Amino acid sequence: MDQKCIGVDIGGTSVKLGLFQGDGTLLRKWEIPTRKENGGAYILEDIAASIRRQLSEEGLALSDLEGAGMGLPGPVLPDGHIEFCVNLGWKAGNPQETLSGLLDGLPVKSGNDANVAALGEMWQGGGRGYKNLVMVTLGTGVGGGVILNEKIWTGMQGVGGEIGHMHIVEGEVERCNCGGFGCLEQVASATGIARVAGRLLEKEEGPSSLRGIRNLNAKNVLDAAKAGDALALKALDTSCYYLGWALAAVTMVLDPEAYLIGGGVSRAGTFLTDRIKTYHDQLSPMATKKADIVLAELGNDAGIYGAAKLILG
Amino acid sequence: MDQKCIGVDIGGTSVKLGLFQGDGTLLRKWEIPTRKENGGAYILEDIAASIRRQLSEEGLALSDLEGAGMGLPGPVLPDGHIEFCVNLGWKAGNPQETLSGLLDGLPVKSGNDANVAALGEMWQGGGRGYKNLVMVTLGTGVGGGVILNEKIWTGMQGVGGEIGHMHIVEGEVERCNCGGFGCLEQVASATGIARVAGRLLEKEEGPSSLRGIRNLNAKNVLDAAKAGDALALKALDTSCYYLGWALAAVTMVLDPEAYLIGGGVSRAGTFLTDRIKTYHDQLSPMATKKADIVLAELGNDAGIYGAAKLILG
Repeated sequence: MDQKCIGVDIGGTSVKLGLFQGDGTLLRKWEIPTRKENGGAYILEDIAASIRRQLSEEGLALSDLEGAGMGLPGPVLPDGHIEFCVNLGWKAGNPQETLSGLLDGLPVKSGNDANVAALGEMWQGGGRGYKNLVMVTLGTGVGGGVILNEKIWTGMQGVGGEIGHMHIVEGEVERCNCGGFGCLEQVASATGIARVAGRLLEKEEGPSSLRGIRNLNAKNVLDAAKAGDALALKALDTSCYYLGWALAAVTMVLDPEAYLIGGGVSRAGTFLTDRIKTYHDQLSPMATKKADIVLAELGNDAGIYGAAKLILG
Repeated sequence: MDQKCIGVDIGGTSVKLGLFQGDGTLLRKWEIPTRKENGGAYILEDIAASIRRQLSEEGLALSDLEGAGMGLPGPVLPDGHIEFCVNLGWKAGNPQETLSGLLDGLPVKSGNDANVAALGEMWQGGGRGYKNLVMVTLGTGVGGGVILNEKIWTGMQGVGGEIGHMHIVEGEVERCNCGGFGCLEQVASATGIARVAGRLLEKEEGPSSLRGIRNLNAKNVLDAAKAGDALALKALDTSCYYLGWALAAVTMVLDPEAYLIGGGVSRAGTFLTDRIKTYHDQLSPMATKKADIVLAELGNDAGIYGAAKLILG
């Protein structure tokens, strides 16, 4: 098939779009701002107009497309229905039906953005060659996506793959955004890594290059750890222990071939994944064949790749 | 189809067999001893002979069967290959091919016994009506099985569903059978519940009807808890907390419709599952639609039902 397709990744600040060939080649990518005024009422219209404009510039028509895939920042039911997308101001509706209507009935499919990114990485990124994997995105929060037999697994209400909200720390007194206490996200997101280090700085007396840094962030901790700072290493090790523990638990449930680590924190590379792997392997002795723990490769493009893959099947 | 089929559940002491109608009706069930001599060399021959004998008594022939399904006490690869079945003395081989050869080429399929039991419960037991569920069997150990879209999910090496070996207790110094420390099985199996109570008896001073019982077992703890014994209640609560935590973690990964609780310990009924549910719900706040936590119903017959379902598809 020479059909092309569009991948759309809607974020709170910008919408990323990509024009793909059927074989997965990204022909063109571009961005438009996310207009959140009026409950996000213009977002889908902007996307439709932008797709039409881009097609026209390429000398293409809607009929040259097999469809458009879309990643949304919230839970998406199998039929495309959403209850809400907090970051966009959206309430209940079916954005994929709406976008299809705005594009003369073009087939549109949608999924949760973290799940769609996992699908993209499996297809054209760090997960190439695996059919069953779990992706963990370490950013401001901890996102996740489960891919089984090359398809997104959402579960009955779209909570499948929400690895960041596995309870993992006992005795935590601060509440997580999800309403729980002691979620993985609270110790393993960028925010969480900085938080673990901040608490260690308060508790321990030894010297550290982190002392005196105002608004300590995860990059400070990772840089200091790479430079050999003992306290930073201890903080990072704590975060990686909980990550390894959570993934070991996933191994006992799903026994996937691989874990993909993405998001801003994953720029630390194998310095990070080697530590996660050590704890994962230690806490899942029954799995004698160890899952690979690999880095995501597509960065911010994972969403548009995965969205395209929703259409290409 | 009026075809019938056979379900076989091979245990370390006895082999359970069932003759089923295509609609799931169990027509006849019987048992034979598991002959473990000579590395378990006679087990499959005994099964084949017993099936032929039973068919003949029923006035049936092998050609009246659609096939035979088989649950095996160990990891089974999708093609039926096993590396070992410790309890049977078996080494590497393909029991389903062997049994098929002994039954004139009758189609034979096999799976791990805990997974097959989960399938049976989904089909004709406590899991009727669910397509996605996770079963947890609380016996001497803690077994488990994951059913997704009405099929067993084994993972890449058959470790999928080994909920009992999720790491869940920090600081445990005794080693689990799997080689790990702090597995769910160590606090939530029958043995584990007795162990938790035994440790509490040593640590705490208060009165308890459990004091003085030699070789304390899970039934003692459950009976005392039901009678209101404070220490027994505290022990049971600890075990249920870890079970609820583990299932909450599974919810964040798979978001299944239901959890099925089986095994000897589950005879405690809703006295047990209500406690598990409380902790599951508390530790998975993001899942606003709560998975059901229900009791298994088929007891020791779950294996033959699930084995039959392997054939009936």
